[in-house]
Amino acid sequence: MRKEATLLRPTQNGDRYELTTPTAMPKAAGFLWNQRMMIQLTCRGFATAQFMQPEPAKYAHPPNIEAKTFMQPEQNYYAHHPGRFVYVKDEVSGSLFSAPYEPVRAPADRFVFSVGKSDVAWAVEKDGIRVEMTMGLPTHDVAELWTIRVTNISNRPRDVSVTPYFPIGYMSWMNQSAEWNPEVVGVVASSVTPYQKATEYFKNKYLKDKTYFICETPPDSWEANQASFEGEGGIHNPTALQGQKLGCGDARYETPTAAVQYRVALKANEQREFRFMFGPAYDLAEIKAMRARYLSKQDFAQTAAEYAAYMQRGRGCLRIETPDKDLDNFVNNWLPRQVYYHGDVNRLTTDPQTRNYLQDNMGMNYIKPAVTRQAFLTAVSQQEANGSMPDGILLAEGAELKYINQVPHTDHCVWLPVTLDVYLAETGDYALLRERVRSANGDNFTVFERFSRAVDWLLKARDHRGLSFIAQGDWCDPMNMVGYKGKGVSGWLTLATAYAANLWAEVCEHEGRKDLAKLYRDGAKECNASANKLMWDGDWFARGITDDDVTFGIKKDTEGRIWLNPQTFSILSGAANPDQIEKMLPQIDDQLTTPYGVQMFAPPYTKMREDVGRVTQKAIGSAENGSVYNHAGVFYIYSLYKLGGQHDRAYNLLRNLLPGPSEADYRQRGQLPIYIPNYYRGGWKEFPKTAGRSSQLFNTGTVSWAYRCFIEGLCGLRGDDKGLIVRPQLPSSWNSMKVTREFRGATFHLDIRREGVKDVTVMQGNRTLPEPRIPNVKAGEVYQLTVLVPQ
Amino acid sequence: MRKEATLLRPTQNGDRYELTTPTAMPKAAGFLWNQRMMIQLTCRGFATAQFMQPEPAKYAHPPNIEAKTFMQPEQNYYAHHPGRFVYVKDEVSGSLFSAPYEPVRAPADRFVFSVGKSDVAWAVEKDGIRVEMTMGLPTHDVAELWTIRVTNISNRPRDVSVTPYFPIGYMSWMNQSAEWNPEVVGVVASSVTPYQKATEYFKNKYLKDKTYFICETPPDSWEANQASFEGEGGIHNPTALQGQKLGCGDARYETPTAAVQYRVALKANEQREFRFMFGPAYDLAEIKAMRARYLSKQDFAQTAAEYAAYMQRGRGCLRIETPDKDLDNFVNNWLPRQVYYHGDVNRLTTDPQTRNYLQDNMGMNYIKPAVTRQAFLTAVSQQEANGSMPDGILLAEGAELKYINQVPHTDHCVWLPVTLDVYLAETGDYALLRERVRSANGDNFTVFERFSRAVDWLLKARDHRGLSFIAQGDWCDPMNMVGYKGKGVSGWLTLATAYAANLWAEVCEHEGRKDLAKLYRDGAKECNASANKLMWDGDWFARGITDDDVTFGIKKDTEGRIWLNPQTFSILSGAANPDQIEKMLPQIDDQLTTPYGVQMFAPPYTKMREDVGRVTQKAIGSAENGSVYNHAGVFYIYSLYKLGGQHDRAYNLLRNLLPGPSEADYRQRGQLPIYIPNYYRGGWKEFPKTAGRSSQLFNTGTVSWAYRCFIEGLCGLRGDDKGLIVRPQLPSSWNSMKVTREFRGATFHLDIRREGVKDVTVMQGNRTLPEPRIPNVKAGEVYQLTVLVPQ
Repeated sequence: MRKEATLLRPTQNGDRYELTTPTAMPKAAGFLWNQRMMIQLTCRGFATAQFMQPEPAKYAHPPNIEAKTFMQPEQNYYAHHPGRFVYVKDEVSGSLFSAPYEPVRAPADRFVFSVGKSDVAWAVEKDGIRVEMTMGLPTHDVAELWTIRVTNISNRPRDVSVTPYFPIGYMSWMNQSAEWNPEVVGVVASSVTPYQKATEYFKNKYLKDKTYFICETPPDSWEANQASFEGEGGIHNPTALQGQKLGCGDARYETPTAAVQYRVALKANEQREFRFMFGPAYDLAEIKAMRARYLSKQDFAQTAAEYAAYMQRGRGCLRIETPDKDLDNFVNNWLPRQVYYHGDVNRLTTDPQTRNYLQDNMGMNYIKPAVTRQAFLTAVSQQEANGSMPDGILLAEGAELKYINQVPHTDHCVWLPVTLDVYLAETGDYALLRERVRSANGDNFTVFERFSRAVDWLLKARDHRGLSFIAQGDWCDPMNMVGYKGKGVSGWLTLATAYAANLWAEVCEHEGRKDLAKLYRDGAKECNASANKLMWDGDWFARGITDDDVTFGIKKDTEGRIWLNPQTFSILSGAANPDQIEKMLPQIDDQLTTPYGVQMFAPPYTKMREDVGRVTQKAIGSAENGSVYNHAGVFYIYSLYKLGGQHDRAYNLLRNLLPGPSEADYRQRGQLPIYIPNYYRGGWKEFPKTAGRSSQLFNTGTVSWAYRCFIEGLCGLRGDDKGLIVRPQLPSSWNSMKVTREFRGATFHLDIRREGVKDVTVMQGNRTLPEPRIPNVKAGEVYQLTVLVPQ
Repeated sequence: MRKEATLLRPTQNGDRYELTTPTAMPKAAGFLWNQRMMIQLTCRGFATAQFMQPEPAKYAHPPNIEAKTFMQPEQNYYAHHPGRFVYVKDEVSGSLFSAPYEPVRAPADRFVFSVGKSDVAWAVEKDGIRVEMTMGLPTHDVAELWTIRVTNISNRPRDVSVTPYFPIGYMSWMNQSAEWNPEVVGVVASSVTPYQKATEYFKNKYLKDKTYFICETPPDSWEANQASFEGEGGIHNPTALQGQKLGCGDARYETPTAAVQYRVALKANEQREFRFMFGPAYDLAEIKAMRARYLSKQDFAQTAAEYAAYMQRGRGCLRIETPDKDLDNFVNNWLPRQVYYHGDVNRLTTDPQTRNYLQDNMGMNYIKPAVTRQAFLTAVSQQEANGSMPDGILLAEGAELKYINQVPHTDHCVWLPVTLDVYLAETGDYALLRERVRSANGDNFTVFERFSRAVDWLLKARDHRGLSFIAQGDWCDPMNMVGYKGKGVSGWLTLATAYAANLWAEVCEHEGRKDLAKLYRDGAKECNASANKLMWDGDWFARGITDDDVTFGIKKDTEGRIWLNPQTFSILSGAANPDQIEKMLPQIDDQLTTPYGVQMFAPPYTKMREDVGRVTQKAIGSAENGSVYNHAGVFYIYSLYKLGGQHDRAYNLLRNLLPGPSEADYRQRGQLPIYIPNYYRGGWKEFPKTAGRSSQLFNTGTVSWAYRCFIEGLCGLRGDDKGLIVRPQLPSSWNSMKVTREFRGATFHLDIRREGVKDVTVMQGNRTLPEPRIPNVKAGEVYQLTVLVPQ
């Protein structure tokens, strides 16, 4: 398994990942965040950063006016894409290279791109000079902290110039300039965020419209003007580097840049270290304060320690030791980090989609359940008077529903019971249900009542046949024209409604409301019956029926013939009986499963089908057109674990959801094994060239479910009101695994082994527990358990 | 004067302009348009093109998602900016260059960028190969017609590859692909314009979402995938050119490109010619139709002839022969072309600002007065019920007020009488006034009544002191916070109202409405009196008074101390008496006049002045912050001609408004002398580095007024209801000039000479006319006149 790992390797305890060539896949990237910013850095040095004020903004821009948009998958990088670079020139021979790789693209003698959980670093060697670059973030502020170390590893004295180059780009058509500021020892670029209406002026007045690049050590020369820096040479060979020093020019309504140059005479093995900060600011006073707070060796070290501690708080509740070390690495180190990112900053939006908000916070149950609790209170405080949930949850004052959240979707209420299920299992905190929440529209209900009202709304939002209306979309955003006239229905949502109603019925029963439990179970049965009557197509469930009464996702369709989600939810809702499941699963295997995962539907659409909504307009291979949409895939996996008896099928799909670690996989997917992207390209039969390619987008509801699958499914460690249930589902190729699980303040060490038992058997010391469940879990306690599972 | 013209030269009869080095100023550009598209091509091969469907759209994109915006000044060009390039590689030596210059940037042995009125062309020679590139447009369709000719000018056989490379860029996040299509012999890229709301789907359904690049001659290989084309080499040295042929790859949700390669064995002096088309299309059928219609040598030639004829219809009504040949060239060839562009296509917007629409059409009086007539009818049909004019005039079905047109400005009514003045002078068509126009709000008035209502509204929209409210802006867009609370007033608008009212009073008088004439003259007097009472600051007029009662544009201000427009309009309105004018003019000379023209105000603001609106937020040197804003400058020149006795001052400023022709001027301004840009950078004292630099934006109300200054001012040839008045205002350095003027269907040849006369004396043959006016002009007639002007 380690054999292929020359290109890609995990280090130490697996909490770093390294890539040893920059040319393999230019998009391979690491990412860091704090509560106010996010930055994605590719192995080549390109960077995409944004910060919240409170809406997402940028402090380094492309050289043209970029549209404000949501975060795109598969972003393009191109010569002038924003990045963080260091040119190194031998001032004797004139030879030039740049670290990490762009813009000069000179092949390095040694290249390591090293992604940690709390920093991103490179080591690049070329012609006897080593450049090490490391970036970290503060825990609370918006700024990049850069350390650049240059070492002479040749055996002779060297005279080099070291030129960090941080392009700032086209800041604004209204105003942009940049100049050297000796007070802060750096380039300060100024702009005014463009606006035209007087009201916007007041809104923009306190935006951080300056970008600074400041130096701990004063450089010998600098340049603040992009065009002067490049000259005719271009950024791969800047004219400014041909002189004795940079031009020390400014930018006046010209494109700003930040380049500073150090002329360094290095004896053999001598080293120089530089520190820089790059980020946005409101004014000079703020830049000075940031400099004073962070820009020294000691402060960098302290900040890095604080940041590492901050990341450590997101380490999650599960440690596994399995025969698959790469899996262990991903599950122990990287998956909870990605879950933490989602729950910690809500994808850095001010109006997360309601379904994302709830599911991202579902993951937080495994890290900080108190955050999840608050998220439920926030979400239901925005419930509509009729019981429905809005399309997005507003998190900042003045925030507005943007982009897709302006399109009405009908599924948001589903996610309340679905995600509450984890909260209650993890905490047993049924008291949440008795919290009283006043909403913006003035009504005042307990959480319990609000959930009931949400499920009531779901059960009501169905047509005369008992099928759920889809309006302009359900979970599948692009399907916005199936029901825009108000008649079309969703097969998936009908089944999801049943699933949600059943989950809610259980809670009602726990709360002593048998009447309500019956009501909701009856509602679920009705939904399932309608789905079985109108959606079952002989071997699988259809996806929906359009406004014009066309059922789709059925055998006679040549495109979009079978959809994954209705099958998954028919298992979860209980609509599918064992016979039906036996028919469905092979169809999923045959029609939807690819080497890169399970496609959301197949075959992909090649053109708009006017009666089935917008889905056909998405690109072949993009998220919504027949791709391996991981969020749908992980639900299928979850349903298999829930179904039981599908250990191998479930595990194989779950394993394949994770990127890497094989080099072959990396080369096709282009994804470092540090996060699960929202999709892998589909169209496997139609477009094998691009199939499996990663979207590179780390925003995805997939991760909380993937983590849940490992915890509840593979490890079988789920809580209930009485304690912790233990029902591992090991794949047949494993004989054992070790698990450490934190649960309600206690720590469980489980030694799981395959043995000749009939059912799962749990032993605490020598004592065999009467059932595979540990009751009365005590916080602070450590439980050592041996778990025997059948052969 | 010709001495410096090694870098820059006019050819033949002056209807082409040539630049002989690509490195001098990368933004130097030519532009072509037809009724449906516009394209600006820089000397280096970068291109910015847009077409109307009906809103402006692009068929070649940058590699990231670009914001939709109005046309920006001083646009940036960068490595991956869209362009039209041809790589030429010697397949024996391996040496590579690209025509015209980008992306390889290999210095040519000979370089000519040649901008014609109906084509843009290059001739580039390098290492014995000549590449000639020519682009033309059809008269009616949206497409670029490219001819590329390669000639072996070395004395030996050559084996070269010729690779036209037309990048297509990031078309859409929703869908993008590109592939070779043998049916149309070219690359066809497909996309779906992104949208999220169902309603937008129907709006976008018939957009031309395909981009094609088709070849008359099938190439030997091609590439449709940008990343595959570039490889690690980058666009300055593409990896794809290192093989025997291009990769023939496609783009699947990847960035599309169009590159085609011809392997060409050329004997000494042998030549090969290729033709291509590049443009947008709805579907394959349309591409096929375009191919059939245009893509052959014969069709290219015929289309070029038709297009030249189309341009010829915009040649204007004036030919001059003066001691200044460069001036003659500009006025006879290029100025009317720019005027025609504005009047012909209204800057390719669907909602031109009302003031722009009226002034752009004012220029059309000198080309096709019938167009101007229709523009008046269109404009007043959108008059509000209260007599005011909207911020923009909607020209297409479904068009909406965008950008700055969503911000309320109070000056639009001014431009009705101001521009009508030229229409009546040029045509004598007072019948227009009796046309009856029903507006969208249902009211039904004659044009005369509508104009009266507009002037009534202007006179009413004044405060208790008689000063005009500014709301969120007058002519000066960025001044949007002087009066946003509803109290602030504009000194300029008060004077402009007086000017408009006086002009309208004249028309009323002509139409026999002495009562109304008196009413409007009284109104004008009131405005002038208020301005004199509250705005006169001792040596000049102030600019306005804010909501908070702060008068600005006065002596005690340290920034924005003196503004040009109030001074200009105090001359036009009659507010300024000769004493005041005598005080004002030296202040304009001293405080506002720079080697590059007259600044709109001075000194530039360095920061926001909260009580004077947004103007301070514009960049130092940008259009609205102390720059040489040519539209304001030309008004000042017009007022000097109107004032009379300012022949030299007026001429010198008018001459300086025109770019070039000296190389020194070109180097500073960076502007080929083929159009007047909307501004030259200001901040002459503060930022000499950038002062005088051209905005490169050819959209400007300046040109119709500049043409008017030449016709009515310098040549003194203005019509009235009786005929053509002749009152030339020659600068003192000239002793004579010859003029040909077309007027009401007649042609006037004027031989103007300085002689010992007391006043302008006009002779027709030997007959001296009783006054300098030719009455009863007969269409079709040719008048030969000798005009004597005083020494």
